[in-house]
Amino acid sequence: MSLTFNDYITQAKSLLNKEMQDVNSIILEKMQNDVALIPAIAQNIINSGGKRIRPILTLLTAKMLGYTGTNHLLIASCIEFIHTATLLHDDVVDENKERRGIETSNSIFGNQSCVLVGDYLFSKAFELMVDTGSLDILRVLSKASSIIAEGEVMQLSNINNVSLSETDYFKIIFSKTASLFSASTRVGGMLSTENEAIIQELENYGVNLGIAFQIIDDYLDYASDSQHTGKNIGVDFKEGKITLPILLTLQVCSDEDRLFFIRTFEEHNQNEQDFAECLKYLHKYDSLNKSLFQANNYLNKAVDNINALNLNNEYSTILKNLAISSLKRLG
Amino acid sequence: MSLTFNDYITQAKSLLNKEMQDVNSIILEKMQNDVALIPAIAQNIINSGGKRIRPILTLLTAKMLGYTGTNHLLIASCIEFIHTATLLHDDVVDENKERRGIETSNSIFGNQSCVLVGDYLFSKAFELMVDTGSLDILRVLSKASSIIAEGEVMQLSNINNVSLSETDYFKIIFSKTASLFSASTRVGGMLSTENEAIIQELENYGVNLGIAFQIIDDYLDYASDSQHTGKNIGVDFKEGKITLPILLTLQVCSDEDRLFFIRTFEEHNQNEQDFAECLKYLHKYDSLNKSLFQANNYLNKAVDNINALNLNNEYSTILKNLAISSLKRLG
Repeated sequence: MSLTFNDYITQAKSLLNKEMQDVNSIILEKMQNDVALIPAIAQNIINSGGKRIRPILTLLTAKMLGYTGTNHLLIASCIEFIHTATLLHDDVVDENKERRGIETSNSIFGNQSCVLVGDYLFSKAFELMVDTGSLDILRVLSKASSIIAEGEVMQLSNINNVSLSETDYFKIIFSKTASLFSASTRVGGMLSTENEAIIQELENYGVNLGIAFQIIDDYLDYASDSQHTGKNIGVDFKEGKITLPILLTLQVCSDEDRLFFIRTFEEHNQNEQDFAECLKYLHKYDSLNKSLFQANNYLNKAVDNINALNLNNEYSTILKNLAISSLKRLG
Repeated sequence: MSLTFNDYITQAKSLLNKEMQDVNSIILEKMQNDVALIPAIAQNIINSGGKRIRPILTLLTAKMLGYTGTNHLLIASCIEFIHTATLLHDDVVDENKERRGIETSNSIFGNQSCVLVGDYLFSKAFELMVDTGSLDILRVLSKASSIIAEGEVMQLSNINNVSLSETDYFKIIFSKTASLFSASTRVGGMLSTENEAIIQELENYGVNLGIAFQIIDDYLDYASDSQHTGKNIGVDFKEGKITLPILLTLQVCSDEDRLFFIRTFEEHNQNEQDFAECLKYLHKYDSLNKSLFQANNYLNKAVDNINALNLNNEYSTILKNLAISSLKRLG
């Protein structure tokens, strides 16, 4: 039986055991604060079982290139802080009640606290970055942060928009997800080499993996078995988010079938049977498989990015396996 | 008739005419974005008539010390971005419907958009900072940003808390207001000199001015003539924020009078007559005058900070006059 994405994450964590412990210590230390709400909320979001994929990517790419310093620990922690701040604000914006089966901070502590603690974590991320002493890395991460925010605003602006173009869908998922993935791998490269071709290949790996990751996330919202993935089903549909399965259906469906999407998305008029009905359309037009096919293309490109480096060590192997096994998140 | 605080702000803007135009251009340029909601919200908050005190402080302090470069323009813009991002999130947290008579962005565009556009402005601020190329300045501003967020969380945690200590009240107002004032004046100094004694004096000026500024703001919430100040009255009372006039009353009032504050703050049980009733208690214990007395002490210290520099130019004169006239905001 082939290994799953989670198996490779576990492998990576064990290979990076010492580094991950250090990253955890930095995160725990930096979120301590006399204002009790800050560590309480930070702890809750950090405990909600994120896989720490982004910091792992930084550590793996740096180590793959033979990095021997310690700045990768600070930067990996900083990237997790940015991600955590984003999640907190996402949960407020999406009014999420739970994340991977754990009650969200906004549900426990209220939206106001989560907005402010998100701001705090975000500021702390920048403080951490400054400690690394590298303006070039600061430039990459501050740019990624503003692209994430831009993507989130763009996504919000296109809720219920059945005319969303495929280009704009990809712009949204690049911004909200792939930009931080690619910043994570780019800075891993920047720490270790000045060879821009290598750094660019690593950035591209992050882009490709990140885009595939988000397509798969969007797929799982229609096809997840929540016992395996911990991800609830039907959330995007309920919120009116136009994701790839919907977009691919809208591109080819009959005018008559389109009326369903006009009602449930554009007019946001949904009843209890509509999600099951929606799934029928996605199957009718084979949109779920087509989505996975696209994700798979990006994953193949990600593997190519690592192969292009002509390296062969345990870090490059895991980076490739993370891409290869990403479709296995399907559970 | 002596000049008011606003008169001196106008004087400063005219003295810094060229610089303020450049700062405005940078702000306008950096908030442009294809995602239409971003400039729409940014424009609304920027139009809501802030005086741009913080960037003015950076420009005045740098010019006072003879700075001739251009980095002060980027940094002043960046400070205004941080402030604007904070205001957007504040309005969400406080559920404000208007600010200085203009409908707030959260009221027009919704909380979700304002959380995300706040994040965007905040990230842009950091991108701008990186462009200055100074890690020392980045350190000051990222530290100030996390202190602001910390102060806002601390304030939220102490809503309705009639046991809030004076120390904690000052910690809150230092964090949420004086930290960015002092960062603004500190970086103005850092741009121009390496003499730490001078830089520290300027930082202290910012702290003292900022604390006085917030005390006066808190005073105005009970004593403002909204036609003059554009500030609504009774907002803090309604929200259960414990500010200096309330704190000073609680320190000396009779047990019987304390019951009123227990009901209206701790139990947050308020009726329409309560604000007028509250004002009676503040007058009975002379808490409004006592608050102004404390503000005045900080303003005197701010003037001393500038005097200690033994400079005498039009910039130092305005910095002193801004402090001297701050009580005139009372209108």
